[in-house]
Amino acid sequence: MKQKKNVTFSDIAKYTHFSKTTISRYFNNPDSLTLENQEIIAKALVDLDYKENKVARILANGKTEFVGIIIPNLFFHYYSEMLDQILATYETFGYKFLVFIGNEQEETERNYIQELLAYKIEGLIILSHTIPSKELSELGIPIVTIEREDKYVCSVNTDNYMGGYQAAGLLARHRCDVIIHINYIGATAHSEIPAYGRIQGFLDCCREHNIRHEMILKEMEDTYESTSHYLSNILADIFRKYPGMKKGLFVSNDTHANVLVNLLVRRYGKLPDDFFLVGFDNSPISREAVIPISTVGQQIDQIAFEAVSLLVEQMNERKKRRPSLLETPIHKVVPPILFRRETTERGQQAH
Amino acid sequence: MKQKKNVTFSDIAKYTHFSKTTISRYFNNPDSLTLENQEIIAKALVDLDYKENKVARILANGKTEFVGIIIPNLFFHYYSEMLDQILATYETFGYKFLVFIGNEQEETERNYIQELLAYKIEGLIILSHTIPSKELSELGIPIVTIEREDKYVCSVNTDNYMGGYQAAGLLARHRCDVIIHINYIGATAHSEIPAYGRIQGFLDCCREHNIRHEMILKEMEDTYESTSHYLSNILADIFRKYPGMKKGLFVSNDTHANVLVNLLVRRYGKLPDDFFLVGFDNSPISREAVIPISTVGQQIDQIAFEAVSLLVEQMNERKKRRPSLLETPIHKVVPPILFRRETTERGQQAH
Repeated sequence: MKQKKNVTFSDIAKYTHFSKTTISRYFNNPDSLTLENQEIIAKALVDLDYKENKVARILANGKTEFVGIIIPNLFFHYYSEMLDQILATYETFGYKFLVFIGNEQEETERNYIQELLAYKIEGLIILSHTIPSKELSELGIPIVTIEREDKYVCSVNTDNYMGGYQAAGLLARHRCDVIIHINYIGATAHSEIPAYGRIQGFLDCCREHNIRHEMILKEMEDTYESTSHYLSNILADIFRKYPGMKKGLFVSNDTHANVLVNLLVRRYGKLPDDFFLVGFDNSPISREAVIPISTVGQQIDQIAFEAVSLLVEQMNERKKRRPSLLETPIHKVVPPILFRRETTERGQQAH
Repeated sequence: MKQKKNVTFSDIAKYTHFSKTTISRYFNNPDSLTLENQEIIAKALVDLDYKENKVARILANGKTEFVGIIIPNLFFHYYSEMLDQILATYETFGYKFLVFIGNEQEETERNYIQELLAYKIEGLIILSHTIPSKELSELGIPIVTIEREDKYVCSVNTDNYMGGYQAAGLLARHRCDVIIHINYIGATAHSEIPAYGRIQGFLDCCREHNIRHEMILKEMEDTYESTSHYLSNILADIFRKYPGMKKGLFVSNDTHANVLVNLLVRRYGKLPDDFFLVGFDNSPISREAVIPISTVGQQIDQIAFEAVSLLVEQMNERKKRRPSLLETPIHKVVPPILFRRETTERGQQAH
């Protein structure tokens, strides 16, 4: 491997017989040159095999075109698909992304933010949960959060209320005698967390349709095995508590819904006829389960695009001579989509 | 939100009564100052709430600490976990990552590489398959590839031969009468593709143990549904072709292994006693399947760490006054791990 010598502004000036100032103007304010001169320089860049040095340009115009991303992990399909869709917006907006995995470590994430600021990022997208939005709002750069506490910063979230309402509504339409919602204790604690809306939507739907319902709230489990053990006990309780009744379960994520399907299929060889199930997320496991699972899906592509758009608007505003900064944060909401599969639509189970 | 005025070298010089040159030396060559003076400046930075401008530093010393990553997608768990583990090496090496999703578009990936070079990345990690390693080797920067054609560049790969051998060996130990390997046609075509080794390992193990075997090679299917349809036909063929025989299947990935488990459990209510299955990847679906699937797992954390280490060595070498560049590329190999679960270990199926 050989290292090529870089072509400099001096080289281009010498080749075109323009001054270095003219060459610099070509890069930073091309319209100040005639179209003819622009073409002469453009041709020279090709002839000389000039490699643009964006780092040098950043110092000249102060614009890095960098956006920072802090994401909790890439193990959850929801996060990896979101990152995929955010990175794909490069094709539309041209911003480059510096990505950090926070792992829910508050101090680590603060260090990452300092590192990102040192690289003069123009904006920041945050999916992690540790740092309060108040603190984020004081960083002095445009910020958009996705699906987390967002009181003091701009955000894009799924309409979780509609999601909870849709799930309970589907189970109600199948005339379930009782509808049970399994979620985390954390989700009920803070009305500022978007996922809180799911519970409200579920409760409102059950009350409006006057359906017996129950909430089962659990601590977050660490491993697949401990979750499986916990859900096995829940299932035994439900069958004991509601004998002969048509039971509808709305589970806060597809991974847990899949555990329930597996437990039932291993015990009965199929899903019992009096049992209906809806998950949340439309993650791959919901389609790939032994009985494909009905689920409420988030429109991740749309959420990602809206988040970057919202950020780009603010970043562009700051490039104006007299930027008018936001007085109050903007919160955008994207509707969820209900996917009906075999855990609720029994007619299709045969195929 | 307010925008803070940046603290400059002049401000620090004024505050400490040092010259600007001394302040500059503090950042670029701190050991040229006495320890006492270093401490005075360090204290001033805190007092003034100085925000480091790495972009300015890059221009001073030419080192961006940027590494580019081009990855095909984040839909496959293998890629998202690999990216997760690569990003985690920031804690060890301090390099920041600019990430692009290639989507297997050759021209798009070439554009991404040009964009990355314009930002003066110090090295590049490539997981996508489109651009030949010969072309990559001519970019003039350190490159490490992971699990792809790597003739002309450094690489880290799983020991795929060992993986194929382990899978066939496990089925052989269960005294299968016939062992069948399902893979893509593409994997057989090029001996330079790491996955080719899986087939060689499978074949060598079957021949050494003198076991009847068959290879089923398919075109890559686009969707879960078309794959499912295809595998359903394969399964029917196998049961027709080998009646009364103990059948062992080694499937090239866990997603397909899971489809086969689902088809069988839906038909028979369980895995037939004369049927044994091993997948590849140890992806979450292998644990979360209705019958947990035995699989050959790649040590993704170790592969990621080795890849970044190999890159850092080369990047450090180039910072020396007289770098000795590699004469021939280095290829590192990481052994796979066999996970035995219920699709081969029937004794545990009851729990």
